[in-house]
Order: sequence, then structure tokens, then C-alpha cells
Amino acid sequence: MIRVGIVGISGFSGRVLLDILLRHKDVRVTYVAAHSTTGRVDHIWPVFKGRTDLVCEKFDLSGAPEKADLFFLALPHTESMNIAGALLKAGKKIIDLSADYRIRSSALYKKWYHADHKDSANLSRAVYGLPEFYREKIRKASLLANPGCYPTAALLGLLPVISLFPERVEQVIIDAKSGVSGAGRKTAEGIMYCFVNENFKAYRVLDHQHTPEISQYLGYAAGKTIPVVFVPHLLPIDSGILETIYVRLSTRLTQAKVADIYNKFYKTEPFVRVLQDGQQPEIRNVVRTNFCDIAPKVSEDGKMLVVTSAIDNLVKGAAGQAVQNMNIMYGFLETEGLL
Amino acid sequence: MIRVGIVGISGFSGRVLLDILLRHKDVRVTYVAAHSTTGRVDHIWPVFKGRTDLVCEKFDLSGAPEKADLFFLALPHTESMNIAGALLKAGKKIIDLSADYRIRSSALYKKWYHADHKDSANLSRAVYGLPEFYREKIRKASLLANPGCYPTAALLGLLPVISLFPERVEQVIIDAKSGVSGAGRKTAEGIMYCFVNENFKAYRVLDHQHTPEISQYLGYAAGKTIPVVFVPHLLPIDSGILETIYVRLSTRLTQAKVADIYNKFYKTEPFVRVLQDGQQPEIRNVVRTNFCDIAPKVSEDGKMLVVTSAIDNLVKGAAGQAVQNMNIMYGFLETEGLL
Amino acid sequence: MIRVGIVGISGFSGRVLLDILLRHKDVRVTYVAAHSTTGRVDHIWPVFKGRTDLVCEKFDLSGAPEKADLFFLALPHTESMNIAGALLKAGKKIIDLSADYRIRSSALYKKWYHADHKDSANLSRAVYGLPEFYREKIRKASLLANPGCYPTAALLGLLPVISLFPERVEQVIIDAKSGVSGAGRKTAEGIMYCFVNENFKAYRVLDHQHTPEISQYLGYAAGKTIPVVFVPHLLPIDSGILETIYVRLSTRLTQAKVADIYNKFYKTEPFVRVLQDGQQPEIRNVVRTNFCDIAPKVSEDGKMLVVTSAIDNLVKGAAGQAVQNMNIMYGFLETEGLL
Amino acid sequence: MIRVGIVGISGFSGRVLLDILLRHKDVRVTYVAAHSTTGRVDHIWPVFKGRTDLVCEKFDLSGAPEKADLFFLALPHTESMNIAGALLKAGKKIIDLSADYRIRSSALYKKWYHADHKDSANLSRAVYGLPEFYREKIRKASLLANPGCYPTAALLGLLPVISLFPERVEQVIIDAKSGVSGAGRKTAEGIMYCFVNENFKAYRVLDHQHTPEISQYLGYAAGKTIPVVFVPHLLPIDSGILETIYVRLSTRLTQAKVADIYNKFYKTEPFVRVLQDGQQPEIRNVVRTNFCDIAPKVSEDGKMLVVTSAIDNLVKGAAGQAVQNMNIMYGFLETEGLL
Repeated sequence: MIRVGIVGISGFSGRVLLDILLRHKDVRVTYVAAHSTTGRVDHIWPVFKGRTDLVCEKFDLSGAPEKADLFFLALPHTESMNIAGALLKAGKKIIDLSADYRIRSSALYKKWYHADHKDSANLSRAVYGLPEFYREKIRKASLLANPGCYPTAALLGLLPVISLFPERVEQVIIDAKSGVSGAGRKTAEGIMYCFVNENFKAYRVLDHQHTPEISQYLGYAAGKTIPVVFVPHLLPIDSGILETIYVRLSTRLTQAKVADIYNKFYKTEPFVRVLQDGQQPEIRNVVRTNFCDIAPKVSEDGKMLVVTSAIDNLVKGAAGQAVQNMNIMYGFLETEGLL
Repeated sequence: MIRVGIVGISGFSGRVLLDILLRHKDVRVTYVAAHSTTGRVDHIWPVFKGRTDLVCEKFDLSGAPEKADLFFLALPHTESMNIAGALLKAGKKIIDLSADYRIRSSALYKKWYHADHKDSANLSRAVYGLPEFYREKIRKASLLANPGCYPTAALLGLLPVISLFPERVEQVIIDAKSGVSGAGRKTAEGIMYCFVNENFKAYRVLDHQHTPEISQYLGYAAGKTIPVVFVPHLLPIDSGILETIYVRLSTRLTQAKVADIYNKFYKTEPFVRVLQDGQQPEIRNVVRTNFCDIAPKVSEDGKMLVVTSAIDNLVKGAAGQAVQNMNIMYGFLETEGLL
Repeated sequence: MIRVGIVGISGFSGRVLLDILLRHKDVRVTYVAAHSTTGRVDHIWPVFKGRTDLVCEKFDLSGAPEKADLFFLALPHTESMNIAGALLKAGKKIIDLSADYRIRSSALYKKWYHADHKDSANLSRAVYGLPEFYREKIRKASLLANPGCYPTAALLGLLPVISLFPERVEQVIIDAKSGVSGAGRKTAEGIMYCFVNENFKAYRVLDHQHTPEISQYLGYAAGKTIPVVFVPHLLPIDSGILETIYVRLSTRLTQAKVADIYNKFYKTEPFVRVLQDGQQPEIRNVVRTNFCDIAPKVSEDGKMLVVTSAIDNLVKGAAGQAVQNMNIMYGFLETEGLL
Repeated sequence: MIRVGIVGISGFSGRVLLDILLRHKDVRVTYVAAHSTTGRVDHIWPVFKGRTDLVCEKFDLSGAPEKADLFFLALPHTESMNIAGALLKAGKKIIDLSADYRIRSSALYKKWYHADHKDSANLSRAVYGLPEFYREKIRKASLLANPGCYPTAALLGLLPVISLFPERVEQVIIDAKSGVSGAGRKTAEGIMYCFVNENFKAYRVLDHQHTPEISQYLGYAAGKTIPVVFVPHLLPIDSGILETIYVRLSTRLTQAKVADIYNKFYKTEPFVRVLQDGQQPEIRNVVRTNFCDIAPKVSEDGKMLVVTSAIDNLVKGAAGQAVQNMNIMYGFLETEGLL
């Protein structure tokens, strides 16, 4: 039984983390904090009434370390890097749900997140928490960079073909659609009900900060640079991401071959479900679960692979994957709390 | 052809007003203004691109009067009363969509709107713009108080029985449900997408500011005080109100009698549709129209009348009814711009 | 560890039952069946892919009894009564989610469900599964009638005041709003997406079959007949019920007194949350949980009590409450599988 | 003033057609019919109560011709081709909203619509009703093939670059998202509320029947075959289409150049709005209008053009464009009834 802390309980990821951890048999949540919100957790999130008496404290770097063994940082980007170093020094483990430790290059981080990286010393220590590809490193991680929501769906959809046939992949286009919770808990006109409901639009076209994260890990797998075109859209739903990924191939692949690759690749994975030919991922089948559903489909001419990939942005795309990573780091059953 | 101005174009009612007025053959929109927003109207509301080149000005009381003959004030409560007097003095007509001139008693206004009334001199001059009951007064009005959204649906649903059988009505309970646009265009956590979607709740239970407006006009019709219990709820839709109204009767009425009363009452009304027995109002049948759909239903024991009444809160509950009132005030065809 | 069967897996309640039971540590699902659907459960409900290999059989009364110790019947009304008697005879326990054993009078059943009751012999044996009021009887039940969704929210909202002050209650009006899953899994124009979305309406006004169920159990608690006016509405959401209940009192009650009554009544209940004055139940706080959130509010004159009550129609209103009942029947921890 | 008939009033396009035509000052709707539905139009669509007394007849080929001058056929695919020939022979004009006369090759029609074409003689006579490209031909048309919803958004988004730089375009990928009304008025599980709400999925991946229609008209404009990859998705909204179109270019284009091309191309078009750099089309800005909003965006390397294009599938994608075509065919003001 380990003691865990959640920093950032007032956000959506914090809420989902607590929901999962309260049911997890190997942990006890001993600390919840936020940047400015304080008070009973069931006042912050009435959904927890009757489930917990936890009280949220204002995060305090000096007092925090003694209160838990592992800290989940569910904070906005550019805040984790101010905290993580000190917690690590105090011998604590960290699972960071922000983008702060995902990009290896602090120059690239600055370009996309418009801030200097304040803890670049720990960048190389961070392990990217995509279990399907980095499970062995995750076991030994003390600073875990939990993947972004869009990158999770993209990488799980692409890595089989990118890993096995890097030389055939000419271009990757990712047309991504996300529910509104991906924007976080904030008040902005663009996510007011009347501006989202019965609406749909693209945003940050060719300019979204998850693009370099996707490119970086595709590049590692391919051993070469993979050009990525990425366009996100806002769906009028709470949670869920579906990405439709177009992979242009230089030489033909057959549907049977591709199906075989994906099935083998994910055969033993507890949270990736490769659908049979003819079926398509639907957000309703993955929402509130840690599953990623994937369907690869090849064009008649064999030179266009269309992969559809669906996750819940707050679960497999954030809090669920974070718990999966914790389970691996501590040797718990990998699915504990998640099925 | 008259010249009309819209003050408050940046709000939802302002947008719907302009949409209707641009199609109205007897008016020209010569002035649009707002409290703080300025610039091309099609930047404020991109939906108007290609339909108008109007530019929104900051409202200026000294320059405004010369720019139009009639002013629609689509402002938040407590703002119209600072403006209306001066415009009236300048010989202009006013249709005020706020609550400022609906309540006759300035004490009651203060109790419910938490502000002193600054133009109580004009309160008695204002005509309440419910055409089905005050058409003759509306013809001669220069200061028109356009009814609130909840009161419109409530009064149209209740006035036939209240007018004809005031002595039989023991109690009125109004269970009202409204779409989110009723809250206006603002950024507040309670109307963020993720807090409204897949949700439903009551709010301001027994404490909503439309209660005294409903009571006042029911009382006028009944010639006595009618106790009103009013509970509003927030529907996860953009626009539309449905009210389920429970009228406890001291003596029996039959379904046939009630149906007859309602049918006769609204027989010649262009915008009230009394549904046949067995049919129920649905918001989708009235949304984006100026219609009010009504179905009265009597219990087996004849002592409970359940009236359901549906409108679009932004049309018959605001901008549409305002234009209907303008049509009456100027002798235009009453349905012009509204069918 | 007991063996449980689910009859009616293809419906929404069957799906939620399986979801809960797969996580329940004291049971093993050994049998799933349906009236006509057969095949792998994860084909019927793709959400279960990776979680179970169960195969749905066509229900067969002769073979079924040996396959489980307890059967959940999640069937349409009028079907359970053809099955329950034989299963009981074979020594099995039954939790019936349909209406077949809720109404004590077979004449009343016929009036509202338009069918002769075919197992009236077992009607008196059935225990009504509202744990907050019938826990002791539930412990010994072998035939459990799981309450309807609307009655669950209504009875939990009303029973404290009805039990304690039956003589003061003059009339009960229940204005109920339900998500679409309450209509079950079927194809009908009225529940097509385009006919529900952005819509809201009342249906079966004063004529819904849950009315006598509510009346019967209110009457038991009051020791007298309580007149009930019941009007259901269809909300454009998946799941969740909110009822706004108007109780006319013959003599005054204060807010403090009522708050005290409700708090005491539910103090030790694990799944009923009485909200503090000023808070209101919201469907989003109870959906996908077994909680019922309740807020009582008294009018200024003390003679109108407005109780708002919210549940998830598929959980506390169906499958969750069924599992809670199972937990009580078998002496499991009452909250097992449900928090 | 011409007499128009609507065949297929019970479908969504029929409903929108009538809504527009009732407000059109140059036409009188003298005939409404359907395949099987009959009775008052305001019973079929209660939204029309108070607006029309029209009665829907069962379509009868012998009696129909004398009842109108122009017939809108809003029928399912494969039905118009049984009717159009006879109406043409009787000297009537036809605007067909189905796919029957859009594909020039009856072999291709058979491949994608799984039916023999029964009126191939008239295929070459049909004019494709995309006013922005075929206005002159439309003026003289007697058999007008109204474009499909997906092709309208795709062609308006692509034709400027395809027409001007056919040699540079290497590949076109269309990622299309549509509201549910695109599926028509039918009862099928996939479009029941609980299966669409809070969901999103791709369907008919690389296999949608609008693909050859898009290819055909792109090919005409390019003077060569343009490979098209087309993947449609189902949005949880009533109406509206947004397409994100990826055009791979063999040589660079700049953002300024592309913006200039699109602005010039549509400068005089009343219903195409090219957005300024930085703005993106949103479905809420085009829904219930005949506008198509378009934003072209070029990648940093100048070799990927991303065009987003939004319409209302029932208006510019069906009934609205049909009326626009009628206006052109009869020399009415092109925007009459549509602004």
C-alpha cells in the first residue's frame, strides 16, 4: 500500500485521477492539493460526496514531500517544472500529466509552449509513459512524463506501421477530433455551452503544440524524421478523442498484412483493442475506460492506410494512463483500478 | 419604412433581433450599438457575414436619438432605465427587452433586481408587450416593456383559465425548463459546456426574479392575487422553454370545456397554437419561430389542470415578440418578418 | 462467491448490470441470455471487448436453472412473470428489474400494463427492493421486485415527509424529467437522434404506468391514500432523472425542521445524499453512480415543500439498485461493486 | 409567380424545402406528395401548424403534372429515375435532390448505388446544380441534378485550386464530418439518440457513394483524374457538415497567393464566404443558411494546403441550393427566399 498525492485536484484530470485511485486496492490517497482552490474535495467536486472526506490544501513545496510517496502532477503546462525537481530530490516519484517533460529539446519546448524550460536538467531523466512502447523503462522511472491526449491516440495508431515499415511511410496526416474536456476547466467564451453545442470547427490548424510530441516519438520509432500534418477539431461532447490518420505509403500493403501487423503488435496489450475488419472505433465504446480502439484500413490501391484510433482523453489520454504507469512503476497488476 | 436602432447587439437577443429585422420589409436598421463592444457586426457575429455591413458603435446617449425612429434596447437589467427617459424625451419610441419597465412597483423591482429604479416616473407609461392581451394599448405605446421569456410562456398558458375562472383557481405551480441562451452571453462556470452538457438541474428554486412579473399580470387578469410557485430548470439545449403548469381548481372542469376555452381564446391569434387533445408541445416545433404551442389537460377528477406551454426564449420570449410589438405599434402586418 | 445470471443482456439495464457485476468481488457471472439475441457479449456491446468472453444464449427455461444461483431478469414488462415462477420452484433467487412484481394488485397491473398477470400467486411473495425502507425484508427475499426508475427518485424524495407527517400532506405533484435510455433499446421515431436532440417535451401526461407504483408505496408509508399527480418529460441526455416534487402541506413546516428530518432519515444510508441548503441536485453528479441526491426546500409561507431528487435511471433506478439488493440478500458489503 | 410541387415532403429535405418556399415571393406551393405518407402537412411536420393548410397526397404520376410547373424531387436514391422522364415529357421542369442524375456513367451509378439506372437517356440532359461553376447551364436546365451534401462542401472548397493549378495537385484527402440529418428520416439503431449522443465515429471508410460524384466534377475542372480519398464521420449534431481537405501540392504555394485565389474566385458569389486568415469555419455560422464558409491554409513548407469548408447539409447541401437553382432557372433574384 503506497501513499499517493494529487496536485491539481480542481482540474478535470485531477477529478478522474481521484475517482480511479479511490477504487485502487494498492494505494491510499493521502494528499490532495491545488494551486489556489482549497477546501473539502466534495465541495470542489460534489460527485465525491459520500466517497471521501479528503480536504484540498494549497500546494506547498516545503510540506508536501512528507505527505506521500508518489505525486501525480495534474497541473497546467509550465507549472510542473517548478515543482518536480524538488520532489525528486526529496526521493519522491512523480507522474507528470503536463507537457513539461515530454519534449526532449528545451528549445522545441520554448517554441511550442512559449516559456523557458526551468528544469532542463531533468528532461533526460524523464521516461515517456506510453506503456505499449516503453514498459521496461517505465518500471524504473522516478520521473514519468505522461503522454498528451492527442499523442496517445496518434502514437498507438501509428507505431505498428511506423516501427515495422519506416521506409515505406511517406507522409502522415492526423485529423483529430476531441471533446471539450480536453480544453481543461476554465471559463472562456469558446467553450461556453452555446458556442460549442450543435457546433464543430477546426482550431489551431497546423499549429497545435502536440505536433512536436507526436513527431518526436514517431521519429524515435522510425529512426528517421516523419513529416506530420496535424489538425485538431472540437467535438460537441464532453470527453473522447477520435483520430483519423492518413498514411501515404511508397509501396503497397494489403489489408490482410496490415491487420496481421496490428493484431500481433497489440496481442498481449491489456488496453489496446484492434478491431476486426469492417468495425470502426466509436468514442462511446472507449469513454470512461482506459482502452484505445484501433482499426486500420487499406485503400484498394494499397498505398493509403487509414487508421482510426479512439480513446477517452481524460482516461487513456491522461489519468487512466497515469495510473497504468503507476501500476507498472510499482509492480502492481497493470490493470488494477482500470477495468 | 422606419429607421430602427438596436442597442445591445453583442447579446443573444440583439443577434436575433438583427436577423429578423434584416428580413423585415418595412424597416431599415440604421443604428447598432453596444455598451462596450464595437466594430463590424459580422466580426461580432460571423453569422452575418455577407448579409450586412453594419458597424457597431459604442452607445452614446447624445448622438443616438437622431439615428433612428425606434430603439430596441437589448441590454442587461438595470441599464435600460438609464437610457429610456432621454430617448423618450427626444420623441423616440422604445421597445425595451430588459425587465426595467415590466414591474409596476419600484419597491418590488428593488426587491427582486437589487437596484433602485432610476426612472420610476416612466413606469406607469410603459405598456406590457403581450399582444394577445394588450394589443390595443400596444398600438399607442411609445415605451414598450417586452415580456420576460418565462412570463411569456406562463401567461399565455394561464391567462385563458385565469381570466375566465379566476375564482376557481386555488394555486398555480410553474415548473419551467429553459435552454442555456436564457442566461445570456457571458462566461461563467455554470454555463461552460462541460457543466451543462448531459446535465439538468433546478436553480433559484422559489427565488427567481420572473416570479413577481408573472404574479402581477395574472393578478390583473384575475382581479385578485394568484399565489404562484415558480421553479426554473436549465436544459442542455441552446434555446427553447417548456413550462409545465399545474393549476389546482376548487371545482371541476372537463377536458372538453377547457379545450373549448383555449381554442376560442386564441382562435384569431397568429402566434399561439392550441394543440389538439393527445398532442404535446415540443421545443423543436417552436424553436426559431415566434409561435407559442399550448396543450391543456385535465385530470380524471377534473380538479387539476396541467397546461404545457412552449416557446423559443429568444424569439417569442424576446426578439420575435419585440418585432411583433413593433408591427402593432406601427400598423405593419403583425406577422411581417416573423413567418 | 455466488454464480449469477443475467437474462436480458441486450438491453441497457443488462449492459449496466454486467459492467457492475464484472467488477464485483463476490460474484461470478456464469450465464447471460436474451430473448432473441445470441453470440459473444462483446459483439452485442463492443464496450466489453477485452473484459469478458461471455457468450449470450437464447434464454431456455429448462436449462437455465442449473447455470446460476441468482438470476437478474432485465426483461421488458410482461415477460418476467412467465419465467420467475419456474426459477423460484427450482430454488433460485430472482431480482426482477421489470414492473411485473411491483404492483400488489393484479387488477391494477392489468389496468396500467394492459396484460393479465400470469403469476399472481407470487405477487405477495415479492419484496419491493427499496433498501432505504425495506432492508430487513430484502435480506430474506427470494423474489425481489426492483423499483422503477421514476418511483425510486420519487419515493426517496418523499418518504421522509410522508412517513413522519402523513396527515399534513394534502397533495403531491411530481414533475419528472428523464434521459432517453429510460425508453430502452429499441428503434422508434420518437427516440431518433434528430427527434430528441435540442428538444424537450412532456409525454404520457397524467397517464404514466409508474403512477400507481408511486401511489402504492406512498400509501403504505402514510397509512392512507396520497393523491399523486405525475408528469414525465424526455430530456435530451442519455441517462439521469431529476424530479421536482411539490408537496402541499396543510400546516407550516420550517426549512430548518425539514432539513433536519431529511438529514436524520438518511444519515446512515450509503447511497442517499441530502444536500445542504442552497445546493441543488444535478444529474451530472449522480450519473453512473448509485447515489440519489436530494434537496428539500420550503416556501416562505411554509406550506409548500419542493423536493428535488436526482438519480441515474440505469443505476440507482435499475441495475445499481439491483446489485445493492443482491448485496443485502447475500450479506455482502452493501456498497460492494457500487462505489 | 410559378406553381411548384414537392415530392417527398415527409423527409428532412422536403421539410426544409417547404419552409423556404412558403417564404419565397415568386412561387406558390400547389402540390405536396410523398411515397406513402398522406394527410395534412402540419400533422406530418407540426412545425408548419399555423403556416399552411397544404395536404400531402400519395404521389401519382398520372395526375401530378397538371398540378405544378416545377417539381422538386426529394426522394431516396433510385426513385427519381422512375418519375423524372414522364414529368419532363409533360413539359415540366425538375430539380432532383437525389443522386440519380449526378453521375454521368450508368455503370458507375450501378457500382455505387447498387441499382441499374432506369433513365440513362436523360443522364446527359441533366445539369449539375452547383451554381458557382455551372450557372450558365443551370439557366437553361429543365432537369437539374442538385449536388450531394458532401460533394457541395468538397467541390466549393477544392475547385479554385483544382481549376487554376490542376497540374500541382498530387492528392486530395477529404475528412468529412456530418450531422445526423444527413442520414435521412428513418429508424435505424445507429441513429437512435443513445447511439449518437456523446459519440463520434467514422463510417463507410473509403467506401462512401459520394466519392465518385466528387471525383467526377473535380476531374472535369482539372482536365485530368484527381485521386480522392474520402472518409465521412457522424457528428452528434442535427445538421451541418465540416470538411477538412488536405491537398498535397507538387510545388509550393504561399498563403498569400492561395488567399488571393480563393477571394477572387468567390468575390461575386452571394453564398460563398472566404474567411480571413486566422478565422475558421464553424458549423454554427452556416447552419440554417445557404452559405458555405471556406478557409484555406498553407503549411510552412508550402506543399500542403488544408481547406476547411462548412455548410448546412439540408440547406446549401440540399434544399437551399435547390431553391438557388430554381431562382437561376427562372430568372428570379438568386438570393430570393435564402437570406
